[in-house]
Amino acid sequence: MKLTIKKDVLLEGLNKVSKAISTKNLIPVLSGIKFELSKDRLILTASDNDITIQTYILNDQENKMKVEKQGSIIIQGKYVLDIVRKLPDEYINIEVVDELKILIYTANSEFTLNGISEKEYPNINLEKNKKPILLNNKVFKEIVMQTSFAASTDEAKPVLTGINFNIVGNILECNSTDSYRLARKIVNLKEFYEENYNVVIPSKNIVEFSRIMGESDEDIAIHIFNSKILFEYENILFQSRLINGTYPNTSNLMPQESFLNVTVNLDEFYSVIDRASILTSDREKNIVTLETSDQTLILRSSSAEIGRVEEKMNIEKNNSENIKISFSAKYMMEALKSFSNEKVEIKFVGEVKPILLKDPNGDSLTQLVLPIRTY
Amino acid sequence: MKLTIKKDVLLEGLNKVSKAISTKNLIPVLSGIKFELSKDRLILTASDNDITIQTYILNDQENKMKVEKQGSIIIQGKYVLDIVRKLPDEYINIEVVDELKILIYTANSEFTLNGISEKEYPNINLEKNKKPILLNNKVFKEIVMQTSFAASTDEAKPVLTGINFNIVGNILECNSTDSYRLARKIVNLKEFYEENYNVVIPSKNIVEFSRIMGESDEDIAIHIFNSKILFEYENILFQSRLINGTYPNTSNLMPQESFLNVTVNLDEFYSVIDRASILTSDREKNIVTLETSDQTLILRSSSAEIGRVEEKMNIEKNNSENIKISFSAKYMMEALKSFSNEKVEIKFVGEVKPILLKDPNGDSLTQLVLPIRTY
Repeated sequence: MKLTIKKDVLLEGLNKVSKAISTKNLIPVLSGIKFELSKDRLILTASDNDITIQTYILNDQENKMKVEKQGSIIIQGKYVLDIVRKLPDEYINIEVVDELKILIYTANSEFTLNGISEKEYPNINLEKNKKPILLNNKVFKEIVMQTSFAASTDEAKPVLTGINFNIVGNILECNSTDSYRLARKIVNLKEFYEENYNVVIPSKNIVEFSRIMGESDEDIAIHIFNSKILFEYENILFQSRLINGTYPNTSNLMPQESFLNVTVNLDEFYSVIDRASILTSDREKNIVTLETSDQTLILRSSSAEIGRVEEKMNIEKNNSENIKISFSAKYMMEALKSFSNEKVEIKFVGEVKPILLKDPNGDSLTQLVLPIRTY
Repeated sequence: MKLTIKKDVLLEGLNKVSKAISTKNLIPVLSGIKFELSKDRLILTASDNDITIQTYILNDQENKMKVEKQGSIIIQGKYVLDIVRKLPDEYINIEVVDELKILIYTANSEFTLNGISEKEYPNINLEKNKKPILLNNKVFKEIVMQTSFAASTDEAKPVLTGINFNIVGNILECNSTDSYRLARKIVNLKEFYEENYNVVIPSKNIVEFSRIMGESDEDIAIHIFNSKILFEYENILFQSRLINGTYPNTSNLMPQESFLNVTVNLDEFYSVIDRASILTSDREKNIVTLETSDQTLILRSSSAEIGRVEEKMNIEKNNSENIKISFSAKYMMEALKSFSNEKVEIKFVGEVKPILLKDPNGDSLTQLVLPIRTY
């Protein structure tokens, strides 16, 4: 393998795949990045067995690279990334000599790295479907932002550490829950799909993928299989394992009727909860108590050792009913962050029933927070 | 105690003293901030026994505060800071009721905190000298930036965890060393002082003080005593303990004559060392080897497992001598960061002698890095 390549272009590619470099040293070859150079492109691949990321750089007319000899090699990911990042030159030369020695050089710098034969790299099948699900990049990022925080981080309940993607016809329903709160997002797909899908994608993997994507308005093609899912976006392939097991039926949790709907200014409500939780402790889930009285909402919390707080704000109500209910300030604030309009609607079903949050102008997103009994 | 005070002004004061709030819970009262309200000012004090910070807010004509009842109280530092930061109002009311209950309130928010009697606060004497040492704020910050990094973090050698301030007449000499490198800065004071001082100030405390100071061009008044030092700057008093023990005589370390002086571009030399150290490990002090050959400087490092690197750059030399010497890339880079001119002069005394760094245009700063034997 021998090539000259524009530093910025190579660095961008390395940055994309580097998120999949294994930091555990169980399989040494997985701490490397696979370089595959053919006449028309350089393919970069990294994998930690949980996720695989692949990208390519085209040998097109833009003078990004010059291929002198085709070939493949595995280079230690951490070092090649650091070297390319710190080289000041516009172009970098990479050459394999003596089979497994990699030279990375410019006018004044020369690195010689020990490489690994590509034969030792696991065979990773980045399989595609004939008819993948198409989803707009921005819509996908919004789904991830609005649901991933509600997934569990407790590996004892593996299925709850994922986001449930449920596709029926042209409807995609995404759910995530850690059994204390639930985030649900419903999206209309542009096309109708014959096959139904119901899969659970590890939340941390989908968050990782949403971070390496650009800001373009292009579609993501999603290829779903029994035990893996492949996202295809621009020149990136991102594959994740799926979580085994049946996702709980969250529709039971979703209350049908509320006895009181309260509409609040989103930022003000967030700040009021933020202040009311100053004296609460993480250990006790930052419990605050909400009470309505006419057009006023009162938030209280107290701690015998530290003191107590009372916050008031004006609200709009749909009837004269009132409520007194306690919940985790932390969970409520995380749920509120997923909304972006000026107002948010809070639906109360009962003192021991879930609290529902909705955008008054849209029905696609529902956040649900369970109350906490304080007596 | 009862007052109304502008939020921003109070927050600024609380932020300044908060750096001294004790986070260890050995003496509960030290996790609080002392509020002392008189007709003409509010004094805020915090102390962790190692450092004490005091500031005041004047009750002047600028409508910053309204004093309704004088008095003193200790308020939990962490909570009062969070409350004041998060209140959206322009003015905040603070009132002590039932002796030890503190009300902090605005139109829609009311916090009730448990306070501590000021009688329980330790008596801290912020003593001043008749003729303090005067030092320009910017010069002081420069001293701290150029010397603090070289102090030891090893508490087993307490005297080396400090910066040595040595004042004779109108000369201030500052030294810091962890016995692997040395930073020396010499400053001409504006005045001549009859009394000589030779003290060791804890490096982390002096760094903390330099962080809370503003950017003004005003002088700092330094009051030195046997076991403590008080810095006075604008409306801030910052007191630190001094470290007991005699600071080593660092003049012995400072070589008198070099056999070779090399002048390099500062940024380029820094980058070359940075790249040469990519393959080195922290555990082994990131050893790199420097070699000169005519007007070329070559930096090398290698690791049997990972590979090797060779970097070249052009230099100016004062004679035809050459050197080959190894040192810690980390220590050299930290020393280089303390210079700000385009060029830096490197003086070589011998292969097993300290390497000296100087600004070619100034003599006030010297950085010394010990070589490491690699054979």
